[in-house]
Amino acid sequence: MRIAVDAMSGDHGVHVCVPAALAMVRENSALELILVGDGSMLEPMIPAGLGPRVRVQHCTEVVGMDEKPVDALRKKKDSSMRVAIDLVKRGEADACISAGNTGALMAIAKFVLKTLPGIDRPAIMSAVPAIGGHTYMLDLGANAECSAEQLYQFGVMGAVVAADMHGMSAPRVGLLNIGSEELKGNDTVRQAHALLKASKLNFVGFVEGNDIFKGTVDVVVTDGFTGNISLKTMEGAAQMISYSMREEFSRGWLRKLQALVALPALRAMRARMDPRTYNGASLLGLNGIVVKSHGSADVLAFQNALRTAVVEVEKGVPQQIRQTLQES
Amino acid sequence: MRIAVDAMSGDHGVHVCVPAALAMVRENSALELILVGDGSMLEPMIPAGLGPRVRVQHCTEVVGMDEKPVDALRKKKDSSMRVAIDLVKRGEADACISAGNTGALMAIAKFVLKTLPGIDRPAIMSAVPAIGGHTYMLDLGANAECSAEQLYQFGVMGAVVAADMHGMSAPRVGLLNIGSEELKGNDTVRQAHALLKASKLNFVGFVEGNDIFKGTVDVVVTDGFTGNISLKTMEGAAQMISYSMREEFSRGWLRKLQALVALPALRAMRARMDPRTYNGASLLGLNGIVVKSHGSADVLAFQNALRTAVVEVEKGVPQQIRQTLQES
Repeated sequence: MRIAVDAMSGDHGVHVCVPAALAMVRENSALELILVGDGSMLEPMIPAGLGPRVRVQHCTEVVGMDEKPVDALRKKKDSSMRVAIDLVKRGEADACISAGNTGALMAIAKFVLKTLPGIDRPAIMSAVPAIGGHTYMLDLGANAECSAEQLYQFGVMGAVVAADMHGMSAPRVGLLNIGSEELKGNDTVRQAHALLKASKLNFVGFVEGNDIFKGTVDVVVTDGFTGNISLKTMEGAAQMISYSMREEFSRGWLRKLQALVALPALRAMRARMDPRTYNGASLLGLNGIVVKSHGSADVLAFQNALRTAVVEVEKGVPQQIRQTLQES
Repeated sequence: MRIAVDAMSGDHGVHVCVPAALAMVRENSALELILVGDGSMLEPMIPAGLGPRVRVQHCTEVVGMDEKPVDALRKKKDSSMRVAIDLVKRGEADACISAGNTGALMAIAKFVLKTLPGIDRPAIMSAVPAIGGHTYMLDLGANAECSAEQLYQFGVMGAVVAADMHGMSAPRVGLLNIGSEELKGNDTVRQAHALLKASKLNFVGFVEGNDIFKGTVDVVVTDGFTGNISLKTMEGAAQMISYSMREEFSRGWLRKLQALVALPALRAMRARMDPRTYNGASLLGLNGIVVKSHGSADVLAFQNALRTAVVEVEKGVPQQIRQTLQES
């Protein structure tokens, strides 16, 4: 399999993308990579031995992290992001990955690859930690407003990936809503509830924000506005807790000593919650595989995002989604 | 000051509400309470010495936790919740508090007390923990859909309470939105942004989910759908982290020993994150003060909710909101 890597984007550009890519090629002998970016920077970074499995696709531009998606789409036709997606379109790569600007990546991917038949808008999906494993959640920010039909499509896509990635036969799909009986959500979620209930999915009904983490649902469906805010809320809450913990364990020498004793558990704890483990969001619903790494990803995190792309290629996620939609 | 306590509602009814109420009366000599509920249960619970400052208002019904708000409003006119709110309406109490059904409390409070001039819909506000203190957030679930004008009103109400409760001269108000540049939210938040920017508020613009916890904003405004999901997300994330921590600190005798050593820091940590500290949500925008305690509150948590009511009475929150709206 061959994956195109936008090697220039993200906060650290080539300094993260290239080492992560090379590590993955060493780890997975079935993997070939195309590093997309400035050839004069990239060529010298590739060790001789890996030559045949890592090639450089030279291009001259980079999409800025704050650049408007519409500008990136129209004006940067030789950007590393665009060229990586073009390689997928032309069949020269089975997937592409970028740590760049999310809005630009979505806009370009949609324009170049188009959506699958039966999918109105692509969605961003990622795994988030949960008790006993993790939960897939979508949309995480591609669509600020979603129709009931789109939420239903997200449910189908999420279930396909959850099943593919974990060999589950019938992932439990829940629709994010608010708890209060009377005011239970809005018309859109009520209509989406009806569509999901009538589908072949293993739909468990409405779930609330705290259910994301309980291990009682495999796929949580919501619109991109709520999904993005929920995702950022969990990131912020985890950061605050970790900050408070560091503060409590550094109040004077006694606490510091206690922290030293507790270090194994604290380290295990940190590893469990490590957001790098969850790096690699999928842009689902496209005619092709596009994975988004966090912009601030380090080498380990970027490798995890690459692993997401590898599994999606192995499982043929877009074909699976297409087939599931045709059957339903 | 006199506060009416719905003594029958919540998961623990009189067993939590009454001891918490009595503890508060002992703590605060300016406080008088009206315990609303079944007189035959309540009368024997009041110690003789507190008699003059704690009286019972007998009633015969209780609103169920899962009862439809419209049924609670129409059919339960002698419920402890309704009677407590009626006491505020008649001026016999300065505030009321209930651990009962949120939807019913909101519906009855709105019907009996009406909203303040200039306020379309009441909102639910609560403090949530943040680095260096806490952040006020509203709406937490009263209004699944909100207009830009309503979001603006929430900003005004939140700023009044933040200022009143903390003597801040100009609380920083932020509007919750998603990060992606291109897809920055929907029309409603963009319009609300314009209204808030043109107001006299210290508006800091759009904030993201993780900003809630950073201590860089005092009031976070959002619609009740997103707010409720964000609130529940933070609760769920904190529970999962606490669960994982317990798990890590109980893997075998060595880890348990380490936990014992680390206990002071772990306890301090737990106290900081204790959701009971943040119990007591305000129903803002009404002609009167109504505080909602979490249904599962214990005595300590219910006392905190009572403290919220006390401060709101002292500060005259509804009058402040009315005045601020008139001036703006």
